[in-house]
Amino acid sequence: MTIVERLQKLRALMQAKGIDTYIVPTADFHQSEYVGEHFKARKFITGFSGSAGTAVITLTEARLWTDGRYFIQAAKQLEGTTVELMKMGEPGVPTLTEYLADTLKEGNVLGFDGRVVSTGEGAEYEEIAAKAKASVIYSEDLIDEIWEDRPPLSEEPVFLLDLKYTGESTTDKLARIREAMKAQGATAHVLTTLDDICWTLNMRGNDIEFFPLVLSYAIITMDKMDLYINECKLSDEIKAAFAKDNVNILPYNDIYEDIKKVSSDEVLLIDPGKLNYALFNNIPKEIKTISAQNPEILFKAMKNPVEIANIKEAQIMDSIAHVRFMKWLKENVGKMKITEMSASDKLDEFRAQFPSFIRPSFEPISSFGEHAAIVHYTSSPETDIEVTEGGLFLTDTGAGFYEGSTDITRTYAFGEITQEMKDHFTLVCISNLNLASARFLYGCTGMNFDYLAREPFWQRNLNYNHGTGHGVGYLLNIHEGPTGFRWQFRPNEAHVFEEGMIITDEPGIYIEGSHGIRIENELLTCKGEKNEYGQFMYFEPITFIPMDLDAINPDIMTDVDKKRLNDYHRQVFEKLSPRLEADEVEWLKKYTREI
Amino acid sequence: MTIVERLQKLRALMQAKGIDTYIVPTADFHQSEYVGEHFKARKFITGFSGSAGTAVITLTEARLWTDGRYFIQAAKQLEGTTVELMKMGEPGVPTLTEYLADTLKEGNVLGFDGRVVSTGEGAEYEEIAAKAKASVIYSEDLIDEIWEDRPPLSEEPVFLLDLKYTGESTTDKLARIREAMKAQGATAHVLTTLDDICWTLNMRGNDIEFFPLVLSYAIITMDKMDLYINECKLSDEIKAAFAKDNVNILPYNDIYEDIKKVSSDEVLLIDPGKLNYALFNNIPKEIKTISAQNPEILFKAMKNPVEIANIKEAQIMDSIAHVRFMKWLKENVGKMKITEMSASDKLDEFRAQFPSFIRPSFEPISSFGEHAAIVHYTSSPETDIEVTEGGLFLTDTGAGFYEGSTDITRTYAFGEITQEMKDHFTLVCISNLNLASARFLYGCTGMNFDYLAREPFWQRNLNYNHGTGHGVGYLLNIHEGPTGFRWQFRPNEAHVFEEGMIITDEPGIYIEGSHGIRIENELLTCKGEKNEYGQFMYFEPITFIPMDLDAINPDIMTDVDKKRLNDYHRQVFEKLSPRLEADEVEWLKKYTREI
Repeated sequence: MTIVERLQKLRALMQAKGIDTYIVPTADFHQSEYVGEHFKARKFITGFSGSAGTAVITLTEARLWTDGRYFIQAAKQLEGTTVELMKMGEPGVPTLTEYLADTLKEGNVLGFDGRVVSTGEGAEYEEIAAKAKASVIYSEDLIDEIWEDRPPLSEEPVFLLDLKYTGESTTDKLARIREAMKAQGATAHVLTTLDDICWTLNMRGNDIEFFPLVLSYAIITMDKMDLYINECKLSDEIKAAFAKDNVNILPYNDIYEDIKKVSSDEVLLIDPGKLNYALFNNIPKEIKTISAQNPEILFKAMKNPVEIANIKEAQIMDSIAHVRFMKWLKENVGKMKITEMSASDKLDEFRAQFPSFIRPSFEPISSFGEHAAIVHYTSSPETDIEVTEGGLFLTDTGAGFYEGSTDITRTYAFGEITQEMKDHFTLVCISNLNLASARFLYGCTGMNFDYLAREPFWQRNLNYNHGTGHGVGYLLNIHEGPTGFRWQFRPNEAHVFEEGMIITDEPGIYIEGSHGIRIENELLTCKGEKNEYGQFMYFEPITFIPMDLDAINPDIMTDVDKKRLNDYHRQVFEKLSPRLEADEVEWLKKYTREI
Repeated sequence: MTIVERLQKLRALMQAKGIDTYIVPTADFHQSEYVGEHFKARKFITGFSGSAGTAVITLTEARLWTDGRYFIQAAKQLEGTTVELMKMGEPGVPTLTEYLADTLKEGNVLGFDGRVVSTGEGAEYEEIAAKAKASVIYSEDLIDEIWEDRPPLSEEPVFLLDLKYTGESTTDKLARIREAMKAQGATAHVLTTLDDICWTLNMRGNDIEFFPLVLSYAIITMDKMDLYINECKLSDEIKAAFAKDNVNILPYNDIYEDIKKVSSDEVLLIDPGKLNYALFNNIPKEIKTISAQNPEILFKAMKNPVEIANIKEAQIMDSIAHVRFMKWLKENVGKMKITEMSASDKLDEFRAQFPSFIRPSFEPISSFGEHAAIVHYTSSPETDIEVTEGGLFLTDTGAGFYEGSTDITRTYAFGEITQEMKDHFTLVCISNLNLASARFLYGCTGMNFDYLAREPFWQRNLNYNHGTGHGVGYLLNIHEGPTGFRWQFRPNEAHVFEEGMIITDEPGIYIEGSHGIRIENELLTCKGEKNEYGQFMYFEPITFIPMDLDAINPDIMTDVDKKRLNDYHRQVFEKLSPRLEADEVEWLKKYTREI
């Protein structure tokens, strides 16, 4: 079926149901950052496959809103589909809500599947409709009715993570959650975020590509936990384990009806930013709710000592894989054909030498030359190019080990590179190490430190257009709140740094048509001295891979910069050499030498 | 009359009026940071003279809440008064509102003068009273009825600042304010903050010690401005000038009745954080209000080119006065008797050599040795000590010139000082210059940079317990919003840096019982390069006084630190030497030498 045919079918259905305008995002029922194949409805109806974008279809028009990262790709994919590209942020282009406000007429019906729309978005649509004297239907998944070969909801099996990986039992986690509920005056807690549910139950699965999450909802009360999940995913052993914690198994979609029947004695703790519009609206109006951040978010972000020990081991394993990969690249680029994709596969080969490697922790970025200047580049057979001498190769990838997930970026130089490339590479190293050196009083947020990473660039009227770091989940989401390094305020990254939080440190520089550089380590937040001024804190680097000395220009480094790089490289050698082969140790010695 | 007698009189009056609990803050009607003598009601009723504190008097008890800065002073001043000291923040000490909630009984009456209480505080008192089923009276200034020799409201004359100082006429300022009102959809704008009114009318006065402000209120509409002020302060020339801008003169206190009669067609632009509780409550409930920051706050903070040229000249004049003062101190400490107070007077003598010097711009801090470790120390005849060799002398003072206000701190060493003092002094210099070196993209706030000043301390587990900088008014308030350098979030300092903003840079270190060090320069916010990344910004130092090389330890400075200090000292010499006497130039050369 072509896109044009799909649109015809959708419009016929809209007419039959009396819907004038229908909104199709790419989202699942859980506000997940990445979604499974079943949920790629916007891709189905427009043909556009980018990760961000929303379609609006009326009886006569079809439009797709997406952002600057995807203008070129979207224009190409929308050719011949009759879907009009709406370039977000470009002058003269109305926003999606402006468009709705302009086109909705009195008596019209605006439709969407309320399960894939956030509470905030849904409320906005409702308001626009009300102003236009139009109405809203949020219970219709029209795409489902026309998508004949729609991939079914994932039915991948669930597995439990052992206490030696999680460091805390579900019994203890539930006790902590219930304490937090009590402190808020709540008797029940609705949980829809997949990573929060998986963390609580120490379960993992395979329902979203790269992310070992499990499609589910939960309602936690003081004496039980109702888990809404496709039961076929659960083995008898797992069911028995859950039963011990009074976790009841209920059909996945039943929560929408069950929530309507909540007893009016209950006080519900909810995180409106995380609930979808349909579920939020199904809570009876007379039920008292307390709106607060899910307590699991902070619990999960503060890794416990067992998790920290595991994460450090995962980082060492991945660092070893990276060193082997770097050595292989340095010895083979220019001698054999290595492409972006084959290099990426090779790195995973080195990772797979460790038995506890499960799979990549997110879609790898493996980009050479000017491709590396495209921050969200993904190599495909159509774009895959050879890694050759005279350029910079960027690899931003991660591994999921039982010991935790990694997210690591390195950029390597081959052959002779330009002075500008060297200078830029050096600035990225300075930036990365500058941020990692922060020491601070308890109470700081990422906004307090982002300048440390920006300084080498801003002092030279340069910048990179992305945040400097994000929290990392333990076999959960790779981007995990509630902290981040960013100079602008973001509510979901505004939490103060707590002991045990893991955060990435990933400055970069991107020169269109030429090169892109990024270096990403993970940092562990630690407590330092406590004295009359308060509790001091610091970051401990846990990623140990050389920053390519072939691309360093020591002339633009201060003594402090050089000392930091030498200190880091000394640690790399000390941590890895005991676990490397003799020839690898010799090679590493050279690439961690003092400058 | 003793405090005990005053309390007796107050209680008799409370009983006569049926008031059970009466709150007495130290505040004026305008939410001013500093207040005139007339408004020191809390000092009158308790005897405690500190700048921060609130008294609550019941028929049987009298309590005073104040913060850690004042525990010792308050304990001493409250001796024998029957007023109980409530140490804010100490474990087990209820807050003022907790105390009210505990003690107010059903049917009680809580009283306060609603003109000296902020809208937010008043609302909180109202809520506590409502919960206790008590009532609130906010129209009674009981202190006024018992304070026989109460200083009258200031009647100091108003003067106008010439266009050569302000750079913008009242006509033009009113036009800009009306544009801002229109943009908000407002037809009238209630203004109660003294500096905003003085800025708008280019007027200054003498109603608050050190601050050339004028007690007044204003209501600005599209065609006129009603100015509520004691008319005796205005000369005929000033009245004529005001008349040209359609500024009507009305009695100071009439605004409370006039606001009740505002036409229901008007839409009022108000800044609830700036209005007092009585005025806010007198706005009829049916009047539409728009709550937003007063537009004057941003206009006033972004100094225009004429103001900037003047401010730079004021800084040069004050820098010259400081250099003469520093030379005099260096040549005379240990040879003649110099005390904290006589030194402070001497500095003002050097300032007074410039004809455009008006008076100090705030209460001077002049502190030697361990006194300097008390951040809010004010020298008095009882505490005044001699400045001697072997210690550090801190001077945090400012001058009001027609060309603007200054706020400058220096710390000087005499004779041999300890290695710790030298190291601390050096850290303060590093910190000050580190912050001044920031270059950044437009959009940053003070939270993004505070770490630059903290870093030298935090890296050594040290800290200073105050903000790093604040905006400075032009012959207005010395602490002026809406920016500040602080690592914690403060809504009134959260504005992004705009071209033309002036901000202080004043890190320090305080070791109880030993020494205190602070170095404060003022910085001008400037636009740098604009390119594909955005608009770059930077700070230009405008204060040029040596950082005492006698107290510097170059061994703990990096090359970058040394270069910054040498660059700064080169600028000091270049800017000042053309305007100094030959012997002063020779002396300055030595104290600005390269290290």
